[in-house]
Amino acid sequence: MLKKVLIANRGEIAVRIIRACRAMGIKTVAVYSTADKQALHVYLADEAVCIGPAPARDSYLNTTAVLSAALGTGADAIHPGYGFLSENATFAKLCKDNGIIFIGPSASVIDKMGNKSQARRTMMDAGVPVVPGCREAFHNADEALHAARNIEWPIMIKASSGGGGKGMRISETPDDFVEQFNIAQRESVNAFGDNTMYLERAIIEPRHVEIQIIADNHGNVVAMGERDCSVQRNHQKMIEECPSPILDDETRQHMMHDAIVAAKTVGYTSAGTIEFLLDANKNYYFMEMNTRVQVEHCVTESVTHQDIVREMLCIAAGEKLSFTQDDIRLDGCGIECRINAEIPEKGFLPSPGVISQMHLPGGNGVRVDTAAYDGFTISPYYDSLIAKIIVQGRNRKEAIAKMRTALEEMVVVGVSTNLDFQYSILGNETFCTGGADTSFIEKFLNGEV
Amino acid sequence: MLKKVLIANRGEIAVRIIRACRAMGIKTVAVYSTADKQALHVYLADEAVCIGPAPARDSYLNTTAVLSAALGTGADAIHPGYGFLSENATFAKLCKDNGIIFIGPSASVIDKMGNKSQARRTMMDAGVPVVPGCREAFHNADEALHAARNIEWPIMIKASSGGGGKGMRISETPDDFVEQFNIAQRESVNAFGDNTMYLERAIIEPRHVEIQIIADNHGNVVAMGERDCSVQRNHQKMIEECPSPILDDETRQHMMHDAIVAAKTVGYTSAGTIEFLLDANKNYYFMEMNTRVQVEHCVTESVTHQDIVREMLCIAAGEKLSFTQDDIRLDGCGIECRINAEIPEKGFLPSPGVISQMHLPGGNGVRVDTAAYDGFTISPYYDSLIAKIIVQGRNRKEAIAKMRTALEEMVVVGVSTNLDFQYSILGNETFCTGGADTSFIEKFLNGEV
Repeated sequence: MLKKVLIANRGEIAVRIIRACRAMGIKTVAVYSTADKQALHVYLADEAVCIGPAPARDSYLNTTAVLSAALGTGADAIHPGYGFLSENATFAKLCKDNGIIFIGPSASVIDKMGNKSQARRTMMDAGVPVVPGCREAFHNADEALHAARNIEWPIMIKASSGGGGKGMRISETPDDFVEQFNIAQRESVNAFGDNTMYLERAIIEPRHVEIQIIADNHGNVVAMGERDCSVQRNHQKMIEECPSPILDDETRQHMMHDAIVAAKTVGYTSAGTIEFLLDANKNYYFMEMNTRVQVEHCVTESVTHQDIVREMLCIAAGEKLSFTQDDIRLDGCGIECRINAEIPEKGFLPSPGVISQMHLPGGNGVRVDTAAYDGFTISPYYDSLIAKIIVQGRNRKEAIAKMRTALEEMVVVGVSTNLDFQYSILGNETFCTGGADTSFIEKFLNGEV
Repeated sequence: MLKKVLIANRGEIAVRIIRACRAMGIKTVAVYSTADKQALHVYLADEAVCIGPAPARDSYLNTTAVLSAALGTGADAIHPGYGFLSENATFAKLCKDNGIIFIGPSASVIDKMGNKSQARRTMMDAGVPVVPGCREAFHNADEALHAARNIEWPIMIKASSGGGGKGMRISETPDDFVEQFNIAQRESVNAFGDNTMYLERAIIEPRHVEIQIIADNHGNVVAMGERDCSVQRNHQKMIEECPSPILDDETRQHMMHDAIVAAKTVGYTSAGTIEFLLDANKNYYFMEMNTRVQVEHCVTESVTHQDIVREMLCIAAGEKLSFTQDDIRLDGCGIECRINAEIPEKGFLPSPGVISQMHLPGGNGVRVDTAAYDGFTISPYYDSLIAKIIVQGRNRKEAIAKMRTALEEMVVVGVSTNLDFQYSILGNETFCTGGADTSFIEKFLNGEV
């Protein structure tokens, strides 16, 4: 088993990983920026190393600083969490070259799935359905428009290195194509330093349904059910649940099968997520693979009663998966709400500041993952996540009722939050009857649902 | 299903029951004493009725006030929680006579099991092992001493109406018998208004192992595994766990079988607990039955993934149990620590006062049940429980490690707590190797373990 793990992250996911390590008797090393010196993950870890100032590029994204901290403290592995270096193939390789286990898939797999057009090609070749579109990578609008004429409009223009909704635009007709392409490309260059774009048929009002998979180094791959993450704002997930309220078991089995095929095709190891779009006719299309633990992994944990982070640590140590596909049963319904410091009425503008007081919900089937505490500062340098509330109930109705109670119980003083907004969504009829697709929040804000 | 439930309790168990009702869409009525007007259960319930001042006899124990609150608010059922009126057969009958469902077993069953010597006889007749002793009820020392000569010394002298360690004394030899009998009897009279005593052979350094059972009105009785509650101070439980670290599966099956026999013999319905003493040779003896939900029911919920309070509500509404004996599997290990406002170094002297700040632990497999919050007052009128921390891990070692992390994370400012004391126990070798019997805390305090 691993002896000492460095957690190359901050916030609730760093706390999550430290807790998992402690439960297993693994020593932990936190890294932190000067802005995070009073952060919970720093207190909870056995050792903590300052790796530079905010913003992230000078600390959490500084591969040399992170690697030096690992080498200096004698860590035998690095867990990257999500975001930051978690999908950085160069960093994964750097770890390996320095004799440190990167807790995640191999650098070549990260690379293969990180490039969105390459990933799409790989999935097509493996027989996994992808959104109809162009396999080529485009660097200029005219070239792309020429190819686009073979696809039905509306067309989604996407950055090859994209993620989190950046570098993504819909072209409604051939007339607006060049304009939208150029906007998306500029965003991609700014966000990812890459002008490579690709095209897909735009799926109208799809559901976002993803499959959690986990694979060891002994050829075992298990699909741990789906998560419906259709409730998004600005392409960022806000509420996630399992099972999806609209997925029938036949489609679920097909999706899990294809997710396993996808993982096996690329030789995937560790935890990962295959994201699909699901249209109104229950056709699903591979969107992308996240080669890391996800924010919403807790939803899957709540209904499978498994521990995904624990399993990642065991896999990294060379162990076999501790469960098989047959052990995966979805027990009731799990829902997660991301409680953010933000102002929903102002386009979800972040609301950094000091949390002067906080009261957390609890009880049976209620889990809270947070790195915040009374007096904690939500920094403008990082994401605005205050806490994840995860509930599990015997069915969706019960889970929704539990979540509403949990949100009512939760108190955050000092910063604006989306607590009331989340509470309203959970009382909305379209949401409650399972009718929320990815356009839900926009419609909700416009009073259309 | 029930439409409106009055919760005849306070503190964390009132909150627990309100949460369960809300998850099921049942309206709730809280009752409170003037000392509790700022209590969490008052805020969380749909309605709240003040039923008098502290102490409890003027409010939470006032059957007329509680019943009037139920009738006045149109509640169709009363959940008594634990303590207070939960094992009061007269109250259960009063509810029934007034057309209100008492959420628990029938008045006659409460009565039958509430009288300890009668319960003992009933169990003997049903073939459930009881501690060797005298079936008779004694009212004076000489009469008892005469009968005692048929039992091996040491002998436990117990109050028939006893509970919580009150009215209980060990006689080591015939010489100290009369003195100990008189002390125990005086305690019983003071605490329960009853001078009826009975005698049992004293089991030396036993484990306290209890079986959770649940039964519906359709003849279904399920045993939900055991809880080892050997870590007690002043006969009050402090740490509870499932499975018991020393119970083999054969003994477990025997105990569960006998618990089901016990429940069926008396026509038990709702949730209840059969408490056994387990000696070093794995002989077990019926001690008593608690005809109500217990503080430590959460331990069972954590390893069975069932909801005992929810089930009680369904049973009261006439539904069948939602699971069968085959559905009960113990998943890993669950541990509960009771965090009290008390001073372990001073004989666990209660430490009431204002909690100026509180930080709760969280994460995967960590549950917190509390009615406290920043600014909440731990009243001298009621028990000193601040919170229950319940963890679930894949095995006992992992659960202990998780609990230690949770206790380290937890912060309570303003009152003294047993947090550090609990933390030390969880690091003690005798505890960690499963060697803690009911004498553990005494030995621990004396540095003998």
